[in-house]
Amino acid sequence: MKDLPVSPLAPDCFPDLPDVAGVEASCSRIGLYRHVRDELLVVRLAEGTAVAGALTRSQTRSADVAWCAAGLKEGRARMLVAHAGNSNAFTGAAGEAKNAATVAEAVRLTGCRQHEVFLSATGVIGVPLPPRTVADRLETAVAALGPPDWEAMARTIGTTDTFPKGAGARLDLDGTPVAIVGIAKGSGMIAPDMATMLVYLFTDAAISPGLLQSLVSQHVDTTFNAITVDSDTSTSDTLLVFATGAAGHALIEDAADPRAQAFSQALHGVMQDLALQVVRDGEGATRLVTITVEGAASDLSARRIALAIANSPLVKTAIAGADANWGRVVMAVGKSGEPVDTSALSIRFGGVWTARDGGAVPYDEAPIQAHMNGQEIDILVRVGAGGGQARVWTCDLTHGYISINGDYRS
Amino acid sequence: MKDLPVSPLAPDCFPDLPDVAGVEASCSRIGLYRHVRDELLVVRLAEGTAVAGALTRSQTRSADVAWCAAGLKEGRARMLVAHAGNSNAFTGAAGEAKNAATVAEAVRLTGCRQHEVFLSATGVIGVPLPPRTVADRLETAVAALGPPDWEAMARTIGTTDTFPKGAGARLDLDGTPVAIVGIAKGSGMIAPDMATMLVYLFTDAAISPGLLQSLVSQHVDTTFNAITVDSDTSTSDTLLVFATGAAGHALIEDAADPRAQAFSQALHGVMQDLALQVVRDGEGATRLVTITVEGAASDLSARRIALAIANSPLVKTAIAGADANWGRVVMAVGKSGEPVDTSALSIRFGGVWTARDGGAVPYDEAPIQAHMNGQEIDILVRVGAGGGQARVWTCDLTHGYISINGDYRS
Repeated sequence: MKDLPVSPLAPDCFPDLPDVAGVEASCSRIGLYRHVRDELLVVRLAEGTAVAGALTRSQTRSADVAWCAAGLKEGRARMLVAHAGNSNAFTGAAGEAKNAATVAEAVRLTGCRQHEVFLSATGVIGVPLPPRTVADRLETAVAALGPPDWEAMARTIGTTDTFPKGAGARLDLDGTPVAIVGIAKGSGMIAPDMATMLVYLFTDAAISPGLLQSLVSQHVDTTFNAITVDSDTSTSDTLLVFATGAAGHALIEDAADPRAQAFSQALHGVMQDLALQVVRDGEGATRLVTITVEGAASDLSARRIALAIANSPLVKTAIAGADANWGRVVMAVGKSGEPVDTSALSIRFGGVWTARDGGAVPYDEAPIQAHMNGQEIDILVRVGAGGGQARVWTCDLTHGYISINGDYRS
Repeated sequence: MKDLPVSPLAPDCFPDLPDVAGVEASCSRIGLYRHVRDELLVVRLAEGTAVAGALTRSQTRSADVAWCAAGLKEGRARMLVAHAGNSNAFTGAAGEAKNAATVAEAVRLTGCRQHEVFLSATGVIGVPLPPRTVADRLETAVAALGPPDWEAMARTIGTTDTFPKGAGARLDLDGTPVAIVGIAKGSGMIAPDMATMLVYLFTDAAISPGLLQSLVSQHVDTTFNAITVDSDTSTSDTLLVFATGAAGHALIEDAADPRAQAFSQALHGVMQDLALQVVRDGEGATRLVTITVEGAASDLSARRIALAIANSPLVKTAIAGADANWGRVVMAVGKSGEPVDTSALSIRFGGVWTARDGGAVPYDEAPIQAHMNGQEIDILVRVGAGGGQARVWTCDLTHGYISINGDYRS
């Protein structure tokens, strides 16, 4: 990770995370960075591991993302090879050649099928790497596989991150203890020389690829697709969830199975924890902002309104200035283009209503200013157009963001 | 206007603008600002003046915008009453009462019809004014009407603007000299305590409301709808074009009339000039950025791609840092969601290609760095998906933007 000051919103320490049966990992150095740091993460997964995921919708997605998309269709995984320092995006045939060499070597070393190998890369866009950059390091990395050091793994994939991100849960599925652990990196939605969002979750639960995918798709909307730092979309964003089945319980394949519901709840908790850590490490962030929209025409409409507020530079700079500028929230609601009854529009900062039923209301300055001076800002907006609701998270827009992304020359 | 340093991108001086027959104006003070400044602009237009326009699409548009929408349907204007210091947006019944009183007084003073009165307001959102705030000043303002002082008019409607914006053209329509003059205000797309975009054009050409509206609608897409400062949409954005007909030539009502084409071209020039002045006064701007997209699936698709680039905080901060970061342009193209052939994607900064046909190309650092150090940045992007093209303008995202919008408390 880069030598930036740790975000003021960072957790006190990396959490204590459980082991996950069927998962081995190693962290090692390729040399893509001038300074000494590990940037190659290799994970080997038990035979029969199910995989599900979510990938960037970018029209200029990287070769690695395209490769993962093909693998997700088959639903099985044996190996994850991820590196920081070069995104392998916009690298054309050279990028595909690099991936082919990496996959061939992984297949040779583990005896798995091609599409059981998953690839990720993050870093500079448009700089092709020699084809065997990763392949030539794989044998050593595989020889070093052992019990996962989750914090080291999170650090290995980090770029502009100012702290390593991890979260986990333990649950009991009809007497079988099961673990879920996730690691993530990301601080801007993207910065080609630096950042993107990569998220990997590992569990020893035994769950079918189809059910796993449906749970991931459901939860990603309320977690990783409900956060925004700067509205920019990475070419490389990748979320993968690996279920090794090594916990030993009978396979879960029916969504109505009570174990599926328990697992789903725990999975959602880990995904949400990681997503909020990404926002807490937003470039230049000094405040974590939770935006809740109620009374929209639909849940989707509520999400669009919430994201219009969360992505508004004027709302985000006001929050940076500890200013409960609800007029800018009115503006952002309007800009969403979604149905709104302005005569019912109400806005609350912290616990204090600043506008109700279409107009300003008098309020005490002291409690609202105390809330705005804090690190966690809550904005509730009711738009009076129906029963739809949504919640999204963002951070403020500060001089720090400009400094990280603008104060240098290439 | 506020006491901010003048934008480094400002023109050297306010242009020398012609008189427009049939237009009288006055600038006066209501007292909405604590310091002494005019903030009320009243314009009286000759009988039979045609009007056309474009209004914000915001779902939380102001009462004034809603009033103008009704007037535009009828196509005739006799009076414009615009003030800075309070946007009259999100003011509910109180805002409508204020407008009703203003309109009634204007009708009493000029003998025109209600919907021949046009209203604009810019400033803080959600603070209702007493109903007669403007009405009680109208008689004095009307008594002061005289030949327009365009620069004073532009200053009167200004808020965070750092320079007054005006542009004009003279043309000859089959022997009759005709003038077009426009004034504008705007520096952020909105900032509720401060800014919004108001644009008024005046011409003594005789042109039917229907034809005038079709020309305005056509040109607004390539001018005011092709600029962006911060992607935020005002509750109050208003563009009105008044054609008094006082030049005395025969009415133009057919788009195929050669005079219509000459007028259209001149109108487009004035609109474009004003639109670029708004970008040049973008909050914190130090560079004017022209983004051209070619080879898109359609012109609309090209515009969406161009706006995705122009609204990307990462692209805008890179430009602030004089960094030809074409990887961020690749990212922004991808995030647009529009059809793109990445193997044909090419990007040029100034005259220098940094990427061609889907990959990086070697380039000389010196000329590109000289271009990036300048005040006017040109980015050309070819996406290889068809024949669609578009051009948009924006400015860089700097510490100045954060300071203007975040470094204060309400």
